[in-house]
Amino acid sequence: MLTTEKQTATWIWYPGDFEIWLHREVCLRREERGSIYPPFYRLDSPYVSLKFQHIYTIAESEEISIAAEGRYNVMIDGLMVPPTSGRIVLPAGEHNLIISVVNEGGLPALFVQGRSVASDPRWNVSHTNWQWVSPGSWHFNKATEPPSAYRLATFKQSYIGEEQLPDGSQLIDFGKETFGYIQLHGLSGVGKVMLYYGESREEALSEAHCETLDCIEVASDAPLEYTHHASRALRYVRIVADVGIQVRDVSLLYEYLPVQYRGQFRCSNERINEIWSISTYTMHLTTREFFLDGIKRDRWVWSGDAYQSYLINYYSFFDEAVNRRTTIALRGKDPLDTHLNTILDYSFFWIIALYDHYWYTGDLEFVRRMYKKLLGLLDFCRGRANANGMVEGQPGDWVFVDWANIDKQGELSFQQVLYCRSLEVSAQLAALLKDDTRAQELSREAASLKKQLFETFWDEEHGGLLHNRVNGVLQGGMTRYSNMFAILLDMLDEQQRELVARHVLKNDAVPSIVTPYMRFFELAALCEVGEQAYVLSEMKSYWGGMLDLGATTFWEKYDPELEGAAQYESSGRPFAKSLCHAWGAGPIYLLGKYFMGVRPLDAGYAKVLIEPTLGGLSWFKGTVPTAEDDEVSIYMDETSLRIRTGNRPAVLRLTSVIEPTCEAGTFCAIGDHRYELSLDSLQSEYVIAYRTSIF
Amino acid sequence: MLTTEKQTATWIWYPGDFEIWLHREVCLRREERGSIYPPFYRLDSPYVSLKFQHIYTIAESEEISIAAEGRYNVMIDGLMVPPTSGRIVLPAGEHNLIISVVNEGGLPALFVQGRSVASDPRWNVSHTNWQWVSPGSWHFNKATEPPSAYRLATFKQSYIGEEQLPDGSQLIDFGKETFGYIQLHGLSGVGKVMLYYGESREEALSEAHCETLDCIEVASDAPLEYTHHASRALRYVRIVADVGIQVRDVSLLYEYLPVQYRGQFRCSNERINEIWSISTYTMHLTTREFFLDGIKRDRWVWSGDAYQSYLINYYSFFDEAVNRRTTIALRGKDPLDTHLNTILDYSFFWIIALYDHYWYTGDLEFVRRMYKKLLGLLDFCRGRANANGMVEGQPGDWVFVDWANIDKQGELSFQQVLYCRSLEVSAQLAALLKDDTRAQELSREAASLKKQLFETFWDEEHGGLLHNRVNGVLQGGMTRYSNMFAILLDMLDEQQRELVARHVLKNDAVPSIVTPYMRFFELAALCEVGEQAYVLSEMKSYWGGMLDLGATTFWEKYDPELEGAAQYESSGRPFAKSLCHAWGAGPIYLLGKYFMGVRPLDAGYAKVLIEPTLGGLSWFKGTVPTAEDDEVSIYMDETSLRIRTGNRPAVLRLTSVIEPTCEAGTFCAIGDHRYELSLDSLQSEYVIAYRTSIF
Repeated sequence: MLTTEKQTATWIWYPGDFEIWLHREVCLRREERGSIYPPFYRLDSPYVSLKFQHIYTIAESEEISIAAEGRYNVMIDGLMVPPTSGRIVLPAGEHNLIISVVNEGGLPALFVQGRSVASDPRWNVSHTNWQWVSPGSWHFNKATEPPSAYRLATFKQSYIGEEQLPDGSQLIDFGKETFGYIQLHGLSGVGKVMLYYGESREEALSEAHCETLDCIEVASDAPLEYTHHASRALRYVRIVADVGIQVRDVSLLYEYLPVQYRGQFRCSNERINEIWSISTYTMHLTTREFFLDGIKRDRWVWSGDAYQSYLINYYSFFDEAVNRRTTIALRGKDPLDTHLNTILDYSFFWIIALYDHYWYTGDLEFVRRMYKKLLGLLDFCRGRANANGMVEGQPGDWVFVDWANIDKQGELSFQQVLYCRSLEVSAQLAALLKDDTRAQELSREAASLKKQLFETFWDEEHGGLLHNRVNGVLQGGMTRYSNMFAILLDMLDEQQRELVARHVLKNDAVPSIVTPYMRFFELAALCEVGEQAYVLSEMKSYWGGMLDLGATTFWEKYDPELEGAAQYESSGRPFAKSLCHAWGAGPIYLLGKYFMGVRPLDAGYAKVLIEPTLGGLSWFKGTVPTAEDDEVSIYMDETSLRIRTGNRPAVLRLTSVIEPTCEAGTFCAIGDHRYELSLDSLQSEYVIAYRTSIF
Repeated sequence: MLTTEKQTATWIWYPGDFEIWLHREVCLRREERGSIYPPFYRLDSPYVSLKFQHIYTIAESEEISIAAEGRYNVMIDGLMVPPTSGRIVLPAGEHNLIISVVNEGGLPALFVQGRSVASDPRWNVSHTNWQWVSPGSWHFNKATEPPSAYRLATFKQSYIGEEQLPDGSQLIDFGKETFGYIQLHGLSGVGKVMLYYGESREEALSEAHCETLDCIEVASDAPLEYTHHASRALRYVRIVADVGIQVRDVSLLYEYLPVQYRGQFRCSNERINEIWSISTYTMHLTTREFFLDGIKRDRWVWSGDAYQSYLINYYSFFDEAVNRRTTIALRGKDPLDTHLNTILDYSFFWIIALYDHYWYTGDLEFVRRMYKKLLGLLDFCRGRANANGMVEGQPGDWVFVDWANIDKQGELSFQQVLYCRSLEVSAQLAALLKDDTRAQELSREAASLKKQLFETFWDEEHGGLLHNRVNGVLQGGMTRYSNMFAILLDMLDEQQRELVARHVLKNDAVPSIVTPYMRFFELAALCEVGEQAYVLSEMKSYWGGMLDLGATTFWEKYDPELEGAAQYESSGRPFAKSLCHAWGAGPIYLLGKYFMGVRPLDAGYAKVLIEPTLGGLSWFKGTVPTAEDDEVSIYMDETSLRIRTGNRPAVLRLTSVIEPTCEAGTFCAIGDHRYELSLDSLQSEYVIAYRTSIF
């Protein structure tokens, strides 16, 4: 006799609420010197009262077991059926099963397992507004492993240095920036153990000013093995135990998101190789439940910071899930009454990033899920535009741009560039979702704003966009921000790009950028106009400068002029600067997109564009992921190029002083020493001869 | 030396969130046979992450103690100041104190006590959207008595009857419907005690079908005195204890909202007196944290039910606070994606009740607090109107009207009457708040809808509003609903009122009303057209009919045709009918407003109208509250009238076959045997001679 296989059950919840709940959890884990440190921006919560519905048809009655996160009841065809020890028997036939779950403090979730009836994404859920939608779910497929138990992976990490300090305390060095739960082994005695954490040695030694500390109370009956309940960012930890307390050994339960290091890069320059490795480690530490800005501070999810992390992710882990989680969490719930993270620019970065996610992954389904949220955010932005249809800071808005001393009053050309691009990409997404009327409206709106933007801010004489206009009066100054974004977001024609590159980006008279955050965009814009050699040298000196100061991950800010521990100061606090900041990991993107030269030519890499440039290196080799399960690999030196295609056709564009050759195809000249070759053979190696220079 | 008195501190929270939180708590207390029974409508939650701000100036530094519901931190001028055992020292001078409080499952709240710095309504609060508003507060003035500890008052109530049943179990009778926590005294042994509750004896005896039951597990070390953790509605409880368990005595911890019985009524008819008393008790049982529909079922807060409770409240307790709590809780948070309680009509009742609250209490400040919520709800309703600008059921809407078998398709004249009145009163509230443009818009909208309503539904020949129109086709039928509301909500001229009274309300061919809910409005409408004598007789038979069946509180439904326990059935469950339902308490309102004849002539009873009518009684005497601290008292028989004014001037209108006389003033004839007298002396007794009839 055949046995019918049991249906696979999975935990289900209101779609998006797992991310909303997890975001709240994660953001509330930040502590500073014993106090909770909730974010400066609004935190949303899951719906508390859900109804899960499943209309089932079974030939024979069957028993189901029910697990819920929260209190629940069961109704069959509108009548309450009280479960016994979480079990009820479903009558045969077609019936309407509704399980209500209530959870005031956490995420209401449900797991139902029967032979043929089992909770899965085909059920319905409503937050008791009687609008049924498909539930959210992930990989929680056991009743005993509910979503609230979700934790990142861990392994035990040993320290590499230990120093006995004169006062009898112990300074532990894990050798590099890391993240996790301190473990004390062989703990005994009665009293307290203080832990002073440091991203730098100086910080760990500063009881008065280290940003993070923990106090562990040890009782006489405490177990010998202790793991601290809260995870911390650190390289060093100083352990100060009361007299009579013994600690035999210390370790760290390192906590991380399991990702694959899909992007690879090695080249002729060891400094760049080190920068790439440290960038990848920095990126991994900040790629967690969500993209965090920094692991010590702010340990929160900021839309502008995340915008870079998404981009870097496409060239490192290609982990689509963390993009989606971050996108859902950042957008939060309605009604919107502030910009995302309260920052004007950050609303636009969210919109542009949503389009990028589609462009890199081709995941239109996710766009569909987010579409109402997108339109709502656009409405919010539109509702705060001024009489000219331009955005400017309204009461309660934070006009961020960058940590730089710039005028943020009135209409900033920077914000209009972001707003305009947001409208353009929204129009494209609307068209993809066949919402044609809206697509046309949005296109018109974008075109009108773009026209106004250029009429208002474009200064032909000075070759760029002016910075701002206040109460109708142009302020005359020029900054890099709007100009580099105008290049990156494809808002300039060829001639304008050249003007901007010459008059703004490579003009020392225009105030320079002070954060890796905006350096990222500046260097990317320079690559867009072919300045890879300059960018390579900047990477070596700027990121290399941090390495020279002993950085094991890249920093939130770096000012080469500062000396010693002055590097660690921020906001008037001696160790407030984050030494592991996602936006420090930009070289991954620069090297992947502008040296290896890989980017989508069609959405979701339906066609791969490969436009490699040595940019001053003698050789490089590497891999760029083009999907969660696909990639291209490239080796390049000054006379040869080898490309291994994946499962996607590609187009190679190459600059060469000779006509390049390849056994597998014929290059087509496209002018100005540039040649193009179609790489239509999948999973194939193309070997190309060419020459960078005539020497 | 003089001592400066310490500032009084009070718990503060985000305004409205106490009510939102308490509503969630209260609604989730309903249980049915061991399962939680969450409402069918959406439950909102308080904001989880708040910032409380106080910019203080003190001459000398002082210590404050901090208590919070949730985790918190303290910042002074942007720098974190970790408290020690909940205390910090505030530096002298002017400083910006911000205390962040996070509470994921409950209500974030704060209590700060210093000598001169203390949390109070003058602080600011933001739900981390950086829009500062004044916090909510109430009467929680001790650190140790936070808002989460809020409970109604209780006292111990003894049973009046005890019956040993053949199976050894015990049936306890509290003599009348009541509400509270069962207490078992002298409890010993090991095992379980089952409690089967009944609003009727039959229900308590039915293990299989009683709606509420509890299972108490008794351990060997359990204390002798036991109070059940959950409150229940009951008259009877059957106690079934395992063998070996002893219970010496049983009582109930009766739980109630402390209110004053401000309204009073006695008259020549004992049956009416009893109806008034039982109505008041019914009203009191359902007037709690909020107005509940019924205390057993649904134990929830429904806007249509509450609409009646508000009205009855003005003639009984005049408890403004429970009105406000109910109003805030029902409206909930944005975004609205369903009508209130999901019911189309219930959104309108909320709006009309908000105006009524202003009309009876004069509390414009509360209207101001609710104004954005009012406009949001109007927008929601408008957004769901059809192309004609009329409302009809949209997907997800529940078109309730009444528990009656009527056509609910398409445009119901009933819903348009409510919608139109909602627009009218909103226009009036907008004008009061000096939002003149909107007031004019709303007036125009109301006038346009009213015109359309009458053009569409008014049937001159049949003397009333037709019931509905489906897809542009009038359905021809006539029901009482829209017609009685058109009278009550002042939408008919004198001639139309007469037509409606004759052709609809007193026409047996128009389907009769089956619930006290709609009987209330029907009888009120009949009173409006002078049919007090008919209404008195209806009260005697309908409410009296319940008394004859042993009612100790009034019921959700009453069908005189049903016999015995069949009265208790509802929705296919033998005991689902609620035997204590707020909408059963309508006689209080009918007697106060239409017999004693007291109603506001200006908002907030700035002038009191007294228009008493015996309506078939030989005499009555009573009191109607006109404010939380004011009232008028009236004695009336067939030849004399005595009125005791309060602190407000009044106008008496009286029908008399002779010209009435009063030493304190002279009546003015206003036609049709009606006379008017100004009662301008406050706190004075007016003695009037008149005659009801010539006999």
